[in-house]
Order: sequence, then structure tokens, then C-alpha cells
Amino acid sequence: MDHRDITAHILAAKRRRGLSFTEIADHIGADRVWLTAALHGHHPLNRVQAAAVTALLELPAEAAAVLEKIPTRGSFDGASPADLTVYRLYEVLQLYRPALKTLIHKALGDGIMSAITFNVALERHDPDARPRMRITLDGGFPAYLPWE
Amino acid sequence: MDHRDITAHILAAKRRRGLSFTEIADHIGADRVWLTAALHGHHPLNRVQAAAVTALLELPAEAAAVLEKIPTRGSFDGASPADLTVYRLYEVLQLYRPALKTLIHKALGDGIMSAITFNVALERHDPDARPRMRITLDGGFPAYLPWE
Amino acid sequence: MDHRDITAHILAAKRRRGLSFTEIADHIGADRVWLTAALHGHHPLNRVQAAAVTALLELPAEAAAVLEKIPTRGSFDGASPADLTVYRLYEVLQLYRPALKTLIHKALGDGIMSAITFNVALERHDPDARPRMRITLDGGFPAYLPWE
Amino acid sequence: MDHRDITAHILAAKRRRGLSFTEIADHIGADRVWLTAALHGHHPLNRVQAAAVTALLELPAEAAAVLEKIPTRGSFDGASPADLTVYRLYEVLQLYRPALKTLIHKALGDGIMSAITFNVALERHDPDARPRMRITLDGGFPAYLPWE
Amino acid sequence: MDHRDITAHILAAKRRRGLSFTEIADHIGADRVWLTAALHGHHPLNRVQAAAVTALLELPAEAAAVLEKIPTRGSFDGASPADLTVYRLYEVLQLYRPALKTLIHKALGDGIMSAITFNVALERHDPDARPRMRITLDGGFPAYLPWE
Amino acid sequence: MDHRDITAHILAAKRRRGLSFTEIADHIGADRVWLTAALHGHHPLNRVQAAAVTALLELPAEAAAVLEKIPTRGSFDGASPADLTVYRLYEVLQLYRPALKTLIHKALGDGIMSAITFNVALERHDPDARPRMRITLDGGFPAYLPWE
Amino acid sequence: MDHRDITAHILAAKRRRGLSFTEIADHIGADRVWLTAALHGHHPLNRVQAAAVTALLELPAEAAAVLEKIPTRGSFDGASPADLTVYRLYEVLQLYRPALKTLIHKALGDGIMSAITFNVALERHDPDARPRMRITLDGGFPAYLPWE
Amino acid sequence: MDHRDITAHILAAKRRRGLSFTEIADHIGADRVWLTAALHGHHPLNRVQAAAVTALLELPAEAAAVLEKIPTRGSFDGASPADLTVYRLYEVLQLYRPALKTLIHKALGDGIMSAITFNVALERHDPDARPRMRITLDGGFPAYLPWE
Amino acid sequence: MDHRDITAHILAAKRRRGLSFTEIADHIGADRVWLTAALHGHHPLNRVQAAAVTALLELPAEAAAVLEKIPTRGSFDGASPADLTVYRLYEVLQLYRPALKTLIHKALGDGIMSAITFNVALERHDPDARPRMRITLDGGFPAYLPWE
Amino acid sequence: MDHRDITAHILAAKRRRGLSFTEIADHIGADRVWLTAALHGHHPLNRVQAAAVTALLELPAEAAAVLEKIPTRGSFDGASPADLTVYRLYEVLQLYRPALKTLIHKALGDGIMSAITFNVALERHDPDARPRMRITLDGGFPAYLPWE
Repeated sequence: MDHRDITAHILAAKRRRGLSFTEIADHIGADRVWLTAALHGHHPLNRVQAAAVTALLELPAEAAAVLEKIPTRGSFDGASPADLTVYRLYEVLQLYRPALKTLIHKALGDGIMSAITFNVALERHDPDARPRMRITLDGGFPAYLPWE
Repeated sequence: MDHRDITAHILAAKRRRGLSFTEIADHIGADRVWLTAALHGHHPLNRVQAAAVTALLELPAEAAAVLEKIPTRGSFDGASPADLTVYRLYEVLQLYRPALKTLIHKALGDGIMSAITFNVALERHDPDARPRMRITLDGGFPAYLPWE
Repeated sequence: MDHRDITAHILAAKRRRGLSFTEIADHIGADRVWLTAALHGHHPLNRVQAAAVTALLELPAEAAAVLEKIPTRGSFDGASPADLTVYRLYEVLQLYRPALKTLIHKALGDGIMSAITFNVALERHDPDARPRMRITLDGGFPAYLPWE
Repeated sequence: MDHRDITAHILAAKRRRGLSFTEIADHIGADRVWLTAALHGHHPLNRVQAAAVTALLELPAEAAAVLEKIPTRGSFDGASPADLTVYRLYEVLQLYRPALKTLIHKALGDGIMSAITFNVALERHDPDARPRMRITLDGGFPAYLPWE
Repeated sequence: MDHRDITAHILAAKRRRGLSFTEIADHIGADRVWLTAALHGHHPLNRVQAAAVTALLELPAEAAAVLEKIPTRGSFDGASPADLTVYRLYEVLQLYRPALKTLIHKALGDGIMSAITFNVALERHDPDARPRMRITLDGGFPAYLPWE
Repeated sequence: MDHRDITAHILAAKRRRGLSFTEIADHIGADRVWLTAALHGHHPLNRVQAAAVTALLELPAEAAAVLEKIPTRGSFDGASPADLTVYRLYEVLQLYRPALKTLIHKALGDGIMSAITFNVALERHDPDARPRMRITLDGGFPAYLPWE
Repeated sequence: MDHRDITAHILAAKRRRGLSFTEIADHIGADRVWLTAALHGHHPLNRVQAAAVTALLELPAEAAAVLEKIPTRGSFDGASPADLTVYRLYEVLQLYRPALKTLIHKALGDGIMSAITFNVALERHDPDARPRMRITLDGGFPAYLPWE
Repeated sequence: MDHRDITAHILAAKRRRGLSFTEIADHIGADRVWLTAALHGHHPLNRVQAAAVTALLELPAEAAAVLEKIPTRGSFDGASPADLTVYRLYEVLQLYRPALKTLIHKALGDGIMSAITFNVALERHDPDARPRMRITLDGGFPAYLPWE
Repeated sequence: MDHRDITAHILAAKRRRGLSFTEIADHIGADRVWLTAALHGHHPLNRVQAAAVTALLELPAEAAAVLEKIPTRGSFDGASPADLTVYRLYEVLQLYRPALKTLIHKALGDGIMSAITFNVALERHDPDARPRMRITLDGGFPAYLPWE
Repeated sequence: MDHRDITAHILAAKRRRGLSFTEIADHIGADRVWLTAALHGHHPLNRVQAAAVTALLELPAEAAAVLEKIPTRGSFDGASPADLTVYRLYEVLQLYRPALKTLIHKALGDGIMSAITFNVALERHDPDARPRMRITLDGGFPAYLPWE
């Protein structure tokens, strides 16, 4: 039993119980994006979190141990950009891709976040006197509509 | 003379004059991220903007016509994710990659925006009663230091 | 049980019952191309449609829940064109490819829509005062004949 | 001097003279999509057409001979779908891609033909008692707007 | 049960009964190359042919329905040549590759048709006043011999 | 000056003089397919042939020496089939691809040799008591027609 | 049962017993990096080591024989650098990649060895009068922290 | 003039003057590995260092400005490992590859650092109370000898 | 049951009985390299050899029929060199790769045949008045030693 | 001027003077295969050899310095086999490929060394009490004959 199996168990249990990732995150006191990524196998849970998720979703007994393991991360293949600054942005997509897809659809239903009706901004901020970058992507949301 | 040639002219002229992209954007009254992407060949300028940039940077006469042309966009190759929701995020990187690299380094010098000391948040907002997604990437900035 | 499993169930049930995708679409009141794509796992059904298809084809009980889920879309791999305008056309093929193959053969039997005895037209139209593009592909249909 | 060189000459001459592909097509009496594809190196012109284009755009003398040559067609690389019915649709994109991009932007400016606000229809028709397929792609047109 | 499963059944039954593809083709009155390709999943049989093959080889009952379905054709992956004239030749190989391998070995045993001691000829012919191309490949046959 | 340069010289000279490959082959007494392949850089000429072609087409003096050199053969990239029997067929395409394209268009004008209205036959023959394979590809020829 | 199966058995047994690779290495008297690589299927054990590991972890009886076999080494695919000096460095990564990941996380928990806060040194040394290279990679360790 | 051009100038000037990278590093007071990487275009120099290198090697005047620019880093293409911990090791190779090749040959002449007669060790250390990883690669050095 | 299954049976039976490929080859009177390649699925056995191997290793009854079939040859994927002379050398590696790996380790234990401490020679010889090439690769054998 | 340029100079000079690689090797007292590889840019010459080749072929003055430099080796791209034992054989091909092609054609004219009429042998030998492997490839030589 590895992370991939656990994720399948989690998605099935979640659907049976009608829980959202946000509700699970609230239940165990974690950030919902972080937790969604973790339950897709991209972050380890700590012991308490792993136990709480296993109990809430009635996962098999060995699930907790796997959820605590540091996973092999990353979710899509293909050539990657060589420049290190650019690579980090690409890595974010690689890591958080299933979480972002899941939460975008949760928030707005079926459709896409547009890359056309779209803008991006970036700014430096310095919390605790240590510089950070903040990049904000903001896009319209064309919905898929069944044809008539 | 195509977009690639113009970009080379622009980068050289910019360096000679000691101008930043932000200063060029302010000069022509455009968003600095949008303008940085445009001058890397990913958006067309309108007639007034093209003339202003050509004059400011003393570009060759035919530059303005090329800057007004709708470009062939996109800047990195390789297999892309098939799911449409995920693809749009990937497309954003593909399109704004040189602009982001340039402006990250402008803000914080040589280093990377970390994907480890990092978090991502997303939220729906509804300006003008039309739904939009906003994704915020926020990361630390480890700097490259020469070794001693 | 995921979209791929459901599609296999649907194709088998359809063959057993001798139903065409057009008949299924008529039964649930949906466009036949859209429904063919949906049943190949590229669009979610709404609750009523999912129940109607599950009943008509006597699919397993959990099929309806999967048919309502927003799917991971897209059906072929490989490098994709970077330019955004061109990419959208490619994406259409990627998304509707099984539906088009199925419905082409339904209409004309075994053979191909020619790319040689062929023409393409495009025009702008403005329904509801919002611009749209319409691209029309029109090709001959050489049939496969067994050799004698 | 090959087709690629001629296309560069044509694009430059066209811009200098302010001619559209539709105007060139009307001038020589050809379909505008077919002619746009031909001038991008994907169809040969006949002797009269080649002479007319060379004269209209004041191309170099040897251009006419190259325009009459049967070209090496196709414009994008990468793995292609193996199934023959699907491949023909992909081939259409490969062949008419620059023509479609050019004419989409001519009709509606900078933006994309949406694959989300979109539908596709197909129907058999039988002109001259020979069966043909007609596939109609119809999509909205989100425009690129400079950010403010 | 799909074409791939049927082919495995056919190859096993054929070996058990000691039948060649030529004998099967003669039995159902079909061209042997065409039939070999069909039984490898690259052409559909008609109802009568499907029933005859199923009976002759004592295939499972549902085999006949699969043999009548229009298959997803093509048998090898990888980048393909873009030019349409060249692509068609490549497509022939892609489609008839297992049939050619099988029938070459049937005719001459273990070895290869040489591409060195080899020539190729092509000619136009016009049966029924409609032009056709005929390409003839003719090669020596170095046999694999066990080493001594 | 390498084979690629010579081929460019040859194609230009051929066009200027209005010669076909068949006429060049007749002039030097060689098979026209073999000679077309050779002049595209896939076979070496012998001393007499190289001199005759250089004289006939008034090629630069050093052309003859390059035409006599054993070339680096092969003309398209990508993954190849591993099985040796199949590979040899693929190799034939790789080697004779420009010759076949050129001579197909010479015989029938602009269009393709169909892979649909098509059949393939193979037979063993034993000239000089040494076994050979002969594979015959026979296809219809849909022509490209300008649209009206 | 092959190396891959054994590795799965080993990882499961190790987790059940709460043993680290270092403890296993100490138990059988082997270097811990070498042993970690070996147990991931990249080095063969000798008879005594194979028996000791099989006993310690209560592996299935046939495990010992597989652990003694010389494995098919290497763990990641993709194009490799052609230059031989560079290739050897790449090969080290290919071979020791699972061992390094495992032991890095063992030493410092979840996070990465930075390639930014990083330096590399190399020096020649000559033990036993035979020259060797020593390359030292030294990097900071940004830890993954759950977001709050 | 970009980093690639500067590197070519540097390598030529270095050879003409008979300087080693170590001597250049000593001259400007920088670490020799860091400086070798920087002069291959993988790190920016500061103003003083750029001036010193330009003067020492008599580079063209505009070289200093390019040497100060933050480069587009990375030197080899191809699919990269997705796991973030492993990726950082791969990134080190990607970044320092020309520097390592150059300095390995400088130290030991023509040959390779063996990946067979080889071992790797890793350890945590905590300078300044901040954890770091140190990985030490140590390999024999088989030399290329001309054959006799 | 195909060649791949048979090879797995053979490797397991061989290990159980403690037989080497050389002993099997001696038992059935075949060259040991040829036989090793054949038992890895790259050459067919004749009827007598197939029966002898099946009996010696107590393989399942249907093994003999599969061992007599002409296999689909070749064992590694990826782009191949286009030039035909070079390709044949590459094909040798592709075909005999498992046999060479197995027999190298049999002869010298764990290690590699060096490509550095190495030379290659080639010569023409003419047995039976028919020219042949002989290429001799000769390399040192650095052994893998466990680290201490 | 790099190794690639020098090789072009060498090939041109060699053709003008009618020298073979064997004659050049004899002139400077080197093994002919090693020297052929070196002059294709895969081994460095020592000072005396570089001067002798430069003089013999009247190469440009700076050729000698480049010929003495340790080259970036390797000559073909694509995915490589991961197993280290197999990789070394592949590396040999990668390194000596142009030398082998050149010397095969020198020995036997235009044709290929067959991989069908072929055998391979390997044996251990222990010169100077150090084990080595010797692999001998021996193949027939089908010649290319012009067709008649």
C-alpha cells in the first residue's frame, strides 16, 4: 500500500461521506490547499493528522503509516525548463496540480480559470525582515455549458 | 525583423540607457508585468504604445510595426498536461515566464522564489458579478551568494 | 471505479442493447456530440442525465456518481503547439477525438474523412452581439473496401 | 530560395503594402483560406496565380518558380495519433495552422477561439451523390485586453 | 474483450490447429494479406466473415461482434513525417506491419527482407481510367543461421 | 561542401534547365529511382556517373568528389521499430523517402498515394535460385484541387 | 520474484519492525549508503549478507537468491549527457538516487538539500599512489513546514 | 553579445594567455569552482569582479555588463526527475557540469572519475546552528591512454 | 504464453538447478552466446533444440512451441542512428544486450567492461572468398567492490 | 575554432591530398582506429602528434592547440540504457561511431556489416594478470550495388 493507493481510498471515502477537502482540513486543523496536496500524496502528515484523517474517513489501518511517510513528490513528466528561477514556478505547478484542479472546481464548478481574461502581478514583501515574493494570478472563469 | 529581433534590440537599448521595465511601463502608461511580457514578444502593443517605446529606446524604424503585430506566443517546449484546467495554469507559465524571471530578479536580486518555503492560496471573487479565480503564490527568497 | 471503467461499461452495454449514441442522447435530451464526448469521459453529466443513462444502460449503481464528477479531460499525449490561438484548435481535437471518430464511422461506415479532397472555411458571426468564430471542415469520404 | 524564404518575402511585402490575404486572394481569384495556406508554403500555385502574386507583391524574379513547386507540407512536429480516422483531423490542423491563426486574428483581432464556450457538430452530406463529412467548430472569442 | 484479446485468441487457436493465415483466408474467401491485417485488429470483418472465422477457430462467442467493429488502427508510436505524401507511405507500414512480418516469415522462414540487396520501382497505372500508383519493393532474403 | 549542398545545387540547376530526374538518369544510364535517391545524397555515384552529372548540370568543380563519397544515409528521425524484419521496411522508407515523393509527384502531380483505397501484396520469387521477397503497394491517387 | 519485489518486501518489513537502513547496515557490517543502494536493487549482496538480511527482516525464502544476483542497475530514464566525464556524474545520481533520497530524509526530515545555498568543491587525492577525485556537495536544508 | 559569446571569448583568451581558471579565480579573489561556473555563464559577477576579469583577459568592452547580468542558468536538456529532493541533486549537475568537467581534467588530465571504483557518503552538519547536508563523491580515475 | 513468459520460466528453472547458459548450450550442442540470446527471446530454436531445453529445464509443455516461433526481436527503445552502416552496429547491441550482460558477469563477476581502458580494432577477412568484417572490442574490467 | 571545425578542415585536406586515415596514423605513429576517432574529435592528441598532423595536412595554425584539448566526447543523442554494464557497450558505439563507419567503408567499400549473417563471441583474458573482456563481432558484408 503506497500513497497512490491511499489517495484512491481517500477519494472514494470522501465521495461516500459527502465530505469536501475543506471540511477535512477544518476537522484536522490544517490549511485546505496544503491538506488537499497532502492527501494527493505530495506532503506527509504528522502523527496526529494522519490518525485523525484515518479515523474520519475510516481508512484501512495501515493508511496512517503511509500518510506519515515522506512521499516521492511531483505529478507530471516531460522536459522541464533549465533556468532555476523559472523551474521553481514550474515545480509549484507540478506539486500542487491536483490540489489546484480540485479546489478550482470546488469553488466554481466545471470550467477553467482563463489565461486570456487574465492578469498576473508580483510584489516583494518582507515579513519578519526576510524578503519574500508574492505572485498573484487572477483570471476569469468561463464555465463549460452543455450544448443545446 | 521579427519579435525575437525586436526583443534583442530592446534589451540592448534598455541596458545602454539604464532603464528598467517598470520605468518603460510608467513612461507609456501600461502595467509593468503586461509590458514586460509584451516587450518579450508575448503581447502586441497598440499604435500609440508602439510609437512611444520605439521613440524612448530609439529602436529601428520598422520596430513599431512588428510591436503592433499579434505575436506567435509561448516560450517553452515539451509535453504539456492534457487536462484543460491544469493546462491553463501551465500556459500562464509558458506565456509570462521571461517577464516573471526578469521582474523577480529586479525585485530581489539573484536567487529564486522558493517552492519549499512556500504556500499557495486560492479564492473565488466576483467583481462585476462575474466569477473569477485568484491564486496567490507566496515564497521565500534564498539568494545566491558567491562562495568564500 | 473511474471514468475509464464507466466508458468500458457503457460501450459494452450499448453493444448488447444495440443502441447508438444518438439514441442515448435523444433519450436523455442532450446534444449527441456533447453526449458522446461525455460518455467517453470528457464532460460531466448533471444528476438527472447521470441517472437516466445509468438506468437506460443498466450500469452498476456507483456509475451515476462518477458520471457527475468533473473528469480529468484530454485524450492524447505528445508535444503541443505553444501559440495559444493554435493550441485551442489542438485542444478541441484532444477533447473530442473519440466522439468524432465514433460519429464519423456511425454516419459513413469504415473509412476516413479526407484531408486531401477537403476544404476549410472560417467566418465570424455575432449571435447575441458577442463575436464567435465558426470553422467548417468539409471532406470527402474514401471508404475502406476489402481487397478482392 | 525555398518556400520558407518566399513566405518571409510575402509577409514583409504584404505589411509594406497594407494588403490582407483576402485582398490578395480576390486579386488572383482564389479562395482566401486556400490562398493563405498556399502563401505559407502548403499548396502550390498554378503558373498564372504564381505570376499574379509575384507581380502584385513585387517579389524577386525566382519566386514564381518556387510558388509553383509542390511543397513539403506540414508545420508541426511531435507524436501523432496512430488511428487513421483521427490522424486526418490532426493533419488538417498541421496543414492549415498558420492560415487559421492568421485569418482568426484578421477577423476578430487579438484573442483566441475558445474551446470551452464551444461546440462541435458533424453531419453527412452527399453532393453529387458522393458522401462527405462536414464538421463545424463554433467557439466564443475571448479577447486579450491590456491590463490596467 | 477487445481486438487485442481476440488477436491473442486467434494466434493461440491457429497454433493449436496448425492453420496458416492463407488457409484461413481461403476458407472465408478473403485476400490473405488483408485478412492477416484484419485478424491483427486493423480491419473489420463483415458479418459472414466474422462468423466463419469464429466457427473455424472456435473462438469465444463474443468474438464475432468485436471482429465486426471498426477498430482503432495503427501499430507503432513515435514522431511521424509531416509531409502528407510521405506520411501515407509511413501509414502503410504502421497499418500492415504485423501482417507483413507474419507473411514474410511464412514465405521464407527466419531472416529479413534486405534493404541493401534491394531495389524499388514505381509506376503509374490507370485501371478504370482512374490513376493509381504502384510501388514495388524487391529485396534479397538473408536468413538467420544458428552459429556453429 | 557536403551532400546537402550538392543536392541544393542539383535541384536549382535541374529547375533552371527544365530537366527531370528521369532525363538525368537516362543521360548517365542509371535506374531513375536509384539515381533520384543518389542525387538526394543517399547513394554514391561511381567516377563516370559523377563526372557526367557534374558536366550535365554544370555543377561546381568539387561536386564530383562529393558525389563519389559514401554518404551518411537516412533522412528522418524518431523512434524506430525494434524488430529487425519490420525495421528493414522502415529503413527503406527512411532511405528512399525524398526519391519516392519526387517521383510520385512527377508521375501524377500534386496529391497523395492513398493508404485507404489501397492494397498490398507480397510474394516470394527465386531468381538465380536465391530467394527474394517482392512487396507491391498499390494505391489510388486523390489529387489536391484548389478550392473554388 | 525480482529485485523490485524484494525491495517492496524490504520496505514493508523495515516499517513493521521500525528499523532504519543504518541499523540494518550495522547488523550485517556494511556501509550504510552502499547497503541502502543494494537493498533498492542496485548492488548484489554476498551470500552471508543476503542470508543475514533475509533472516533479520524475515523475508520470503527465495529472497536471498535474488539479493545475490547482479541486478540490472539504474533508476531513471531520459536522455543522458553524451560526454563521458559528465556522464559518470550523471550515472552516480542514477544509481544512488533512492539511497540518497532515503538517507537525506533520515538525517534531516522532510525538506531538500538546497542547490542555491550551496557550494561544491573538488580535489585530487592519491591514496595508495593511485589518483582519485573527491567532489563535495554542501547545501543548506530548507525544511517543508505545513502552512498555518 | 550574450553569456554564450562571452564564454567563447574567455576560453579563447585563456588559451592564448595560458591561464588556468584557478589563476583567474586567485586573481580576482573568488572560489575557483564558483568562478569557473560563473565564467561558463552560470553565475553573475559583481561589478569589481567583472571589471577585473575583463581587464585580465582583455575582453571586449561590453563584456563586463554581460558578466554582471543574472544569467539564464542550466546546461542540459531532457526529462528531469520529478521528486523535489532528487531534482536538487540533478540541478547541481545541470548547473556545474561544465565547471566540473573543466576542473576534473585540470586536476587529473584526460580520463573520467569512475562510478564503479567509487563510493558516496553523506552526513549532516550544523554550522551556525543551521542544518546542512554534505555529500561526498569519491572515485578512482581511469585515464585515457592512446592505444599502441 | 509468449517469449517473455518462457524467459522468466527459464531463468527461474536455471537458478533452481544451478545450471549456467554454457552448460545448457553444451547440452543441446549450440553456441553459448547464440543460445543465451535465443533463450532471452531473440532467436527461434529448431524442433530438437526446443524439445531438449524443455526437457532439461522441465518447462511447461507449451514452451517448446513458443521457443520454435520466430520472435519479435530487439530489446531497447529510443531514437536510433539513421545511417545504415552505423545502425547495424546499434542493432547488434539491441539484439544481444541481455546475452552480453549475462555472459560478461558470468565470466568476470560484478563490474563493467571499461570503455576507457579500452581499444577497438577492425579488420577485413575473406573466408570462403566472401568478405566479412571483424570488430574486436577489448576492455579492462573494473569490479564493483562493496565499500568498507 | 573548435573540434568540429578542425574535423571539417581535416576531411577536406585529406580528400585534396588523397590520404587515408591509415596513412596519417602511420605517419604519426598512432593506432589507426584511435587516430580516426581522435581526428573526429573524440580523443586529444599529444603535442608532437598535433604538430605532425597540422603540418602533414597544412591545417590552420590554431588547429594544433585545439587538437591537444580534451574534447567534449560522444556523438549521438537519444535515451540510453540505464544498466551500467550495457551502457558501456553503448558508449563505445557512441564514441567510435564515425571512426568505425569510415574504416568499414575503407576496408570493403559501400555496404554494411550484416547483423544477420553475423555472430558475436566473448571471452575473458588476463594480460598482466589483470582481467579483461574481449568481444568479437563478425559479420558478412552485403554491398550496395547500383540497380540495373
